[in-house]
Amino acid sequence: MKFSIKKSIILEQLVNVNRAISPKNIIPILNGIKFDLDEQGLQLTASDSDLTIKSLIKPEDIETVDKEGSIVIQAKYIIDIVKSMPGEIINFEVVDGSSIIIYCNNTKYNLNCLNSNDYPQIQMEENKNSIKLKGEDLKRMIKQTIFAVSTQESRPLLTGVNININGNILEFITTDSYRLAKKTFILEENFDEAINIVVPGRNMNELDKIVSDASIVEIHVFNNKILFKIDNILFQSNLLNGQYPNTSNFIPKEFKYIITTNLNNFYASIDRAALLTQSKERNIVKMEANENKLCISSISSEIGKVEDYLDVERNNDEQIVISFSAKYMIDALRTFENDDITIFMNGDSAPIVIKSNSDESLIQLILPIKTY
Amino acid sequence: MKFSIKKSIILEQLVNVNRAISPKNIIPILNGIKFDLDEQGLQLTASDSDLTIKSLIKPEDIETVDKEGSIVIQAKYIIDIVKSMPGEIINFEVVDGSSIIIYCNNTKYNLNCLNSNDYPQIQMEENKNSIKLKGEDLKRMIKQTIFAVSTQESRPLLTGVNININGNILEFITTDSYRLAKKTFILEENFDEAINIVVPGRNMNELDKIVSDASIVEIHVFNNKILFKIDNILFQSNLLNGQYPNTSNFIPKEFKYIITTNLNNFYASIDRAALLTQSKERNIVKMEANENKLCISSISSEIGKVEDYLDVERNNDEQIVISFSAKYMIDALRTFENDDITIFMNGDSAPIVIKSNSDESLIQLILPIKTY
Repeated sequence: MKFSIKKSIILEQLVNVNRAISPKNIIPILNGIKFDLDEQGLQLTASDSDLTIKSLIKPEDIETVDKEGSIVIQAKYIIDIVKSMPGEIINFEVVDGSSIIIYCNNTKYNLNCLNSNDYPQIQMEENKNSIKLKGEDLKRMIKQTIFAVSTQESRPLLTGVNININGNILEFITTDSYRLAKKTFILEENFDEAINIVVPGRNMNELDKIVSDASIVEIHVFNNKILFKIDNILFQSNLLNGQYPNTSNFIPKEFKYIITTNLNNFYASIDRAALLTQSKERNIVKMEANENKLCISSISSEIGKVEDYLDVERNNDEQIVISFSAKYMIDALRTFENDDITIFMNGDSAPIVIKSNSDESLIQLILPIKTY
Repeated sequence: MKFSIKKSIILEQLVNVNRAISPKNIIPILNGIKFDLDEQGLQLTASDSDLTIKSLIKPEDIETVDKEGSIVIQAKYIIDIVKSMPGEIINFEVVDGSSIIIYCNNTKYNLNCLNSNDYPQIQMEENKNSIKLKGEDLKRMIKQTIFAVSTQESRPLLTGVNININGNILEFITTDSYRLAKKTFILEENFDEAINIVVPGRNMNELDKIVSDASIVEIHVFNNKILFKIDNILFQSNLLNGQYPNTSNFIPKEFKYIITTNLNNFYASIDRAALLTQSKERNIVKMEANENKLCISSISSEIGKVEDYLDVERNNDEQIVISFSAKYMIDALRTFENDDITIFMNGDSAPIVIKSNSDESLIQLILPIKTY
C-alpha cells in the first residue's frame, strides 16, 4: 500500500472512525484502524465489536495511489501523528507487511502495524427499507433523550435508547427508572414494519458527534443491529437484547396541578437552590406553589438555606408541595428550546411531567422524592 | 453588619482572596472568608496559614452601609452564590451573630457563619524598604521559572522559587534537580540589602493569577515572610526555611557544541518525537547533530520510531548525540518568546543550556539522560 493524501481529508475521517475504538477493548487488533486502499478509494474501519464505523474516502480525494493494499494501524497514535505533520500532503507507504512509513518534508514516522487479514470480517450491508432523516433532527432527538439513560449495568436494557417506529412516527425513549425522556418525530414517509429496538446509549452518543446538522442520515434496521449511513460513513451498532419496558403507562394522562412558567427563570431558580445541595446524594430541592407564586427552596443544616420566588400561571389556587432531584430537573430543562414550559403534577408522590408550551413532541418526566 | 454592593465588584475580590483557601486545610475557620466592614471599607481576608490574601473594597465602591461589623462566611459557597444572583446589587445582612442573609430581587440565601473573633490574627504590615515592579514583568518571571519547581516533598526547599536581590538585580531560580530555570530582571532602583529567600511554588502560582499585566506590584521582604501589594490587595506568603542550593556552579560557563535554531521548528520537532513516548517514564528523545543537520528521533520497540530533520547553525561540524526528556525540553522551550534560540552543550552527559538569541536574561538548563 502506497498513497498520498491531504492531511485535512484523512484527519477528518480518522477522527470519525476512531469514535468506535473503546478504551475497554481487550482484543489487540481492535485497537487499530484498518486501512483498505483499492479502486473504490481508501476505506477506514474501526470497531469495538459492539460498534463499527467505516468511512470511504473516494479516489478523487486521494492525491496519488502508487500501490493498493490493506493494513491495520494503531489508533492511539495515528491521529496525533497525522495532526503533527508539518506539510499539507502526507505520504503513507507500507514497507513490509508489518510496518508503515508516514512521512512528509523532513518528518518520518515508522509504525509497527498489524496484518489486515487478522481483522474481523464485519458485515455492513444496507437494507431495502430505510428511513431518511435530517442530521439536525436526529441530533436533537438524541440530545433530548440520551441524558436519561441508566449508567447502571444491573439493568442493561435501560442503558440504551428505545427507538420505536410506527407508521410515520419515530420515537426515542430513555429511562433510568427515576426519570424518563420521550421525543416524537413525524417522518416524511410511512415505514412498512413496526420497529421496537434498544440501541446502546454510548453508541448513540458517538453517533451524535459524527452527524452534522446539514447531513442526511439513512437508518437501516436489522434483527440484531442498526446501521446509520451518513454521506460516506457507515455507523453500525449492535442492539441490546430484550424487551424494553412499556413506558406508555408511566406517563399520566390527566393532571390536578398545572403550572406554566418561563423556562429560563425556572431553570435559574432550580440552579440557585441546587447550590446548597452540592453533594450527589443530597441534591433535593423543594417546590411549593401558593396561588400564583412558586417558591423553590433547599435546606442544609450545615450550610444554610435558600428561597427563590417566581410568578407563575396556574390552573387552580390549591397549595402543592413537592420535592425532587435538582440535577434531574436541570437535565430535563436543558432539553427545551422554547421560552415557556408547563409542569404537570398530581401530588407529591406522583410523577412530574414537563412539556414545552409550543411543542408537544417532547415529554420529560421526573419522579418526586418523598422527604418525610 | 448590613450593606449592599455591586455584584461585579464583590465577586472580583472574592475570587481574588479565595485563592488562599486550600482544599487541604484542616482548620475549620480557615475554610471561610472573613468580612470586615468599617469606615475604611469592606475588607475580605482568606488564609491557609501559609498564604494570606486581603482585599479592601473602598467605601466609594459600596452602595450602602447600614451597619458595620465582621463575620466569617464559608468560602465554598459564597462565590457561587454571588455569581448566581439575578440582580446587579446584592444585599448582605447578618441576622444574628451566626448567620447571614444574602438577597436580591426574589432570591434569598441564609448561610450559617462563623464568628470573626475566632479568626486568627494575621499581621500584614508593610516595610519601609520595598521593590516596585510592573505586573507584566513579575508575571513573566513567574511563568518562565515556576514549571521547574519540584513536586516532591522529600526536598521541600526545591518546591519553592528562589528569589535573589543583589543591588538592582532581581533573580528567580527554580530547580527540581533534573532541570533548572533562571530569570534575571534589572530593577529601576538599587535595593539596600541582599535578599536570598525561597517562596512556596504554589503561592507564586496563585500570585500570578491575581496580578494583572497593567498593575504595579510592591514587594516587601521580611525575615520569615514576603508581602506583595497589588492595588488594594495584600498577598502574604510564608518563606520556606533553609538555604537554597547555590545553583551558580550548576551552569557551565564554556561550551564545546553550540547550535542555533528556530524556536518554533525545534519545538515542533521535539513535540513530534514525543508522540511515540507518551508514557511518563519513557519520555526520552534523542538529538543528533551532524554538520548542519539536526536529527530529533525517538524509538519504541512496540510502537515504532520517528525521525525529524532540521537545518541549524553550528559552531563546528563535530557529531554530538545526546538524549533528554521530551517533556522537560518542551517545558523549557515554552518559556521563550523570541524566534531563535541557542542550545549549548559539552557532551552527552553534561547539562544542556538553552538561551534566547536576543535576550540573555533567561537560562533554561536540562540534564541529559544516559541511554546506554
